[in-house]
Amino acid sequence: MNKKIPKSTVTRLSIYLRDLDNLEKEGARYVSSLELSRRLGVSDAQIRRDLWYFGQFGRSGMGYHVGSLKDIIMKLLGINQKRWHVAIIGVGNLGKALASYKGFAERGFEILACLDVDKNKVGRRINGVKIEDINNLRQIIEKRKIKIGIIAAPVSSAQTIADELVKSGIRSIINFAPIKLHAQKGVDIRNVDLSMELEGLSFYLSRSNA
Amino acid sequence: MNKKIPKSTVTRLSIYLRDLDNLEKEGARYVSSLELSRRLGVSDAQIRRDLWYFGQFGRSGMGYHVGSLKDIIMKLLGINQKRWHVAIIGVGNLGKALASYKGFAERGFEILACLDVDKNKVGRRINGVKIEDINNLRQIIEKRKIKIGIIAAPVSSAQTIADELVKSGIRSIINFAPIKLHAQKGVDIRNVDLSMELEGLSFYLSRSNA
Repeated sequence: MNKKIPKSTVTRLSIYLRDLDNLEKEGARYVSSLELSRRLGVSDAQIRRDLWYFGQFGRSGMGYHVGSLKDIIMKLLGINQKRWHVAIIGVGNLGKALASYKGFAERGFEILACLDVDKNKVGRRINGVKIEDINNLRQIIEKRKIKIGIIAAPVSSAQTIADELVKSGIRSIINFAPIKLHAQKGVDIRNVDLSMELEGLSFYLSRSNA
Repeated sequence: MNKKIPKSTVTRLSIYLRDLDNLEKEGARYVSSLELSRRLGVSDAQIRRDLWYFGQFGRSGMGYHVGSLKDIIMKLLGINQKRWHVAIIGVGNLGKALASYKGFAERGFEILACLDVDKNKVGRRINGVKIEDINNLRQIIEKRKIKIGIIAAPVSSAQTIADELVKSGIRSIINFAPIKLHAQKGVDIRNVDLSMELEGLSFYLSRSNA
């Protein structure tokens, strides 16, 4: 369990988890790596390699038990029992959308704070969470045991906010501002780029039009 | 060029492109697959394999020329010259955020229409684009040669909207509603799940806390 797990494997665990959800809804009890491979467009060798990082699960000839594999992956991802406390910084359109996003709570991520620099926004509520003054960032994070920060602020303030989050003890950050943020060692910053999916579409679109 | 390119390779092309952008800003002229590998956490064998799908670019001993590789990848992704016309359907918080997202135009994606079912929103402008009635979807798409549809509507209407988009001739859809949409053959639907990045953080967070 102490092997270094590549980030790409962790990302694929989330992809497998989503498909296992779908398989469960479809009533499937077992699934082979070959079938998962066909459904997801990931090679079955890759799937087996990813799961082998964490031990042997499949029963030869039967494939994986959908429910058990789902549980195992949720446990691996740390989202089975634990609920992670999350703060959103920047409550513009994107921040509001993220605060109301239903998928987070389902996966065990609880938005416990929404912060903004704009005094006019402070005091309003989004999806039940009161917007608070960004100046109180540090004490809010400590008091509510927040472990994950989501930056939904403009490019100009994103790096400052990231630095403040780190000073407040946060080690896990998701950044939606279209700028690559830098972090000290030991801090995990994910820069989300919403145009990447569009590029994927463009690739196939430009080929089919050719 | 007619080989079947895996989706995961196309996704990585976007990841490489972003890092080449950064390298260019840092003033680097050449980069080896080994260095890209270190920067991105993708194995250098994987990087070479991905690029080999499209022919040989690297100069042995020198690595890849940053500017040229960037151009090649942009061309491969179909985003070098062409501008793709995009429509956003559903102008709630997320739709508004997407309509104002600066990263799209930079990559050649132009938001030419924002549509909503809510008559109170129709006529307002977001980032210069007027919100229009969803009932005019088909004619707007045809007239403005829109090729990509972004669904930012609630779960309850997402599938209906996807079907309408397909009937209007759209073959490329990005869906932000947290539900897996189904499409006919030949239609490329990407279901974006905003909680996937959070799961990646959770994985490392639960290990560092253990």
